[in-house]
Amino acid sequence: MSEADFSQGAAYVRGAYLPIAQASIPMTDWGFLRSDATYDVVTVWEGSFFRLDAHLERFLRSCRRWRLDPGLDAVQITRVLCECVRRSGLREAYVEMICTRGQPPWGSRDPRQAINQFYAFAVPYVWIANAQQRERGLDLRISDVQRIPSASVDPTAKNYHWNDLTMGLLQALDDGGDTVVLVDGAGHVVEGPGFNVFCIRQGTVITPAQGMLEGITRRTVLEMAQSLGLPVQVRALPTEELRQADEIFLSSSGGGVLPVSRLDGRPVGDGRPGPLTRRLVDTYWAWHRDPAYSQPVDGLR
Amino acid sequence: MSEADFSQGAAYVRGAYLPIAQASIPMTDWGFLRSDATYDVVTVWEGSFFRLDAHLERFLRSCRRWRLDPGLDAVQITRVLCECVRRSGLREAYVEMICTRGQPPWGSRDPRQAINQFYAFAVPYVWIANAQQRERGLDLRISDVQRIPSASVDPTAKNYHWNDLTMGLLQALDDGGDTVVLVDGAGHVVEGPGFNVFCIRQGTVITPAQGMLEGITRRTVLEMAQSLGLPVQVRALPTEELRQADEIFLSSSGGGVLPVSRLDGRPVGDGRPGPLTRRLVDTYWAWHRDPAYSQPVDGLR
Repeated sequence: MSEADFSQGAAYVRGAYLPIAQASIPMTDWGFLRSDATYDVVTVWEGSFFRLDAHLERFLRSCRRWRLDPGLDAVQITRVLCECVRRSGLREAYVEMICTRGQPPWGSRDPRQAINQFYAFAVPYVWIANAQQRERGLDLRISDVQRIPSASVDPTAKNYHWNDLTMGLLQALDDGGDTVVLVDGAGHVVEGPGFNVFCIRQGTVITPAQGMLEGITRRTVLEMAQSLGLPVQVRALPTEELRQADEIFLSSSGGGVLPVSRLDGRPVGDGRPGPLTRRLVDTYWAWHRDPAYSQPVDGLR
Repeated sequence: MSEADFSQGAAYVRGAYLPIAQASIPMTDWGFLRSDATYDVVTVWEGSFFRLDAHLERFLRSCRRWRLDPGLDAVQITRVLCECVRRSGLREAYVEMICTRGQPPWGSRDPRQAINQFYAFAVPYVWIANAQQRERGLDLRISDVQRIPSASVDPTAKNYHWNDLTMGLLQALDDGGDTVVLVDGAGHVVEGPGFNVFCIRQGTVITPAQGMLEGITRRTVLEMAQSLGLPVQVRALPTEELRQADEIFLSSSGGGVLPVSRLDGRPVGDGRPGPLTRRLVDTYWAWHRDPAYSQPVDGLR
């Protein structure tokens, strides 16, 4: 048998490392059958993790929120993530850690009787927006679909409940947009599939306060804005206000700061990525070389 | 290699039949990573499917709602389900059919580019309530967690968005209850993990109208009530009204009509399964022998 090909990615599954194409979860795991799981995603850029500590901290907090036990601590998880990246050989990677409920003994419906499972994988870096979209800016659509509210599912603990995001995305793509942002019951903008949303009005950076994931990249944007001396407002963001913005951008581990140049097909500002957005993009990538935020992947050549 | 052991269940995975313990889905399928999937469950009792046509019709409707294509029509799906049951040899089975998004090509975030996948499995019949609970009646808890609203995820198209149900269930179990029912934003009872809820007041059968799955067993209960001459009301059901009920029961493919004898730890009526509930239980099982609803599993000995 020839050596396994990890070039498309490597996964950690029940104690073994497998090429991503061979990685699977049991069909009967509640992580699938009830979306009873949590996850986090950290990226590797130029051979180093970006803000690994923040992602690990949030992952373990999400696990506690959903009463899931990955069975590994932060140091052990780091070792697994490093090995996934090392096997893949990827110097720019999208690295996901997952904890699923597993499955209670047959006949039991008690989640407390399940043995939780930990998985991880490293695949090539994922961009929310492709190169052309990053250059010209995205066309963002505002959806009528309401994001699942906090009273139902706590959005600050990462979860795979994405049906609302996916249905909104399908409609946006059908309508000729690039991606979508959802609203809450009050008509405030909350988040899109895999990203937080920001706008800039008269030099002030504004982003929603509630009803969405508290993204690590969102946190990075808020810190960058502070370091650049830009005023920040974290508060409810009505859709009408987004329509009047000078600049709009998205934040995601899948590409960092991503400019939006059209909203519902109409130009934002002059219809090109804005100057403050460009400064934040540059700062985002510059911070990847700051040892305060980056950590080399052990054993990666 | 010895012959595969299908006695714990049989699954259909990418064109092959496997023992349930070997059945898995790819880790990168959006059916897992975004809970982008639909499903339905039909049961087999004494070697016959119960209301298979209704389940197939709903499954295909759910697929259309989420823009998923299982790639098989009702006749072809029936053949797969029969073969899963036949391989398992189970004369009482819980049979699940699933369609997942699959995965778009790497780099794409467009769900329309994914090749959807169909899966199925047959396992031993699942009871929402065990024998003792069915005899004495369940202790049902009313949760503070709100069921994911229709404005976010259409509950009439089956989906695995169960985090709210699972978190409510965990709290109910911790509090000493047997299972849980969730409410909507208006404080009306909607549904529990895998079941609809009914109450009886002064001889009238009452069940919620909106915000929950339109269960096939729920439909069966409504039809049984009609055939037994019981008045029915399908409408909003406030929690205070549930607390004043003479009888309460659940409906699920996982056991049919299941009596509730305690609500939040306090007796319902005289604290024992009620007389009309018992009539509905008996009728439910009697209907399993009615050829209008039952269909023998082809090839099952």
